[in-house]
Amino acid sequence: MSRAIDRVNGMSVFDPGCTSREVLEHATGRWGALTLVALVDGPLRFAEVRRHVSGISDRMLSQTLQRLEADGLVARTPQHTIPARVDYQLTDLGRPIAERVCDLIEAIYAQLPGIVAHQRGRQSGAPAPASEAAAETVSGPLG
Amino acid sequence: MSRAIDRVNGMSVFDPGCTSREVLEHATGRWGALTLVALVDGPLRFAEVRRHVSGISDRMLSQTLQRLEADGLVARTPQHTIPARVDYQLTDLGRPIAERVCDLIEAIYAQLPGIVAHQRGRQSGAPAPASEAAAETVSGPLG
Repeated sequence: MSRAIDRVNGMSVFDPGCTSREVLEHATGRWGALTLVALVDGPLRFAEVRRHVSGISDRMLSQTLQRLEADGLVARTPQHTIPARVDYQLTDLGRPIAERVCDLIEAIYAQLPGIVAHQRGRQSGAPAPASEAAAETVSGPLG
Repeated sequence: MSRAIDRVNGMSVFDPGCTSREVLEHATGRWGALTLVALVDGPLRFAEVRRHVSGISDRMLSQTLQRLEADGLVARTPQHTIPARVDYQLTDLGRPIAERVCDLIEAIYAQLPGIVAHQRGRQSGAPAPASEAAAETVSGPLG
């Protein structure tokens, strides 16, 4: 079970200097995960990605796509059509990573009823396995 | 392939109001993913988690653990020992999600040689499938 904890061929996401940590942050950061998943079904234009990833600004989507392009996970392909259009698509490097993000999202969907029940239990003050312990923590409100 | 894109029983990570999106951000945010993975092998004390997740501050680790507790993914259990200690561990809700984060990290490890080669190709100006396109983008430098 310690798979991802162990260094694999000298790589470790726990090492702040390892590229894998940087890629993990780009692939899972606030917008990176949703952007990768939006592209799983095939190439999309900028405006189409933005429509999928509700709430993202043009500037943030542009930055997110650029980071994913810099890592080689997404390719940007100008189409020589009139009017001109640019397609964004997963690369061979990006596809297996995007698919694992999909798996993660499916795991979250599967646990969501339990998560929501837990959150409601905390809010209503009803006893729940972790809520009692959380009430003892000293730090400020959750972000 | 459109699995995670489609709404599943009314849930959608693309919906800013859906709890699944919030949980995804907590589980994959800058520190959430590393914290979940650090706990995959078993309970750890605060200082032990911090040692795994290099670079995290006490305050940030505290916030990260509180968010994961609030979602019910991590439980905080005070041990009645002398000296007193507190264990953090994955819950039944958190374990399958943490395991999918491990799978994602393994996918990143598997693609890392290709990713690093792509990044180096861009830096040295050598042609690479996505680098040419990226050079045409108009926005500022990557963060």
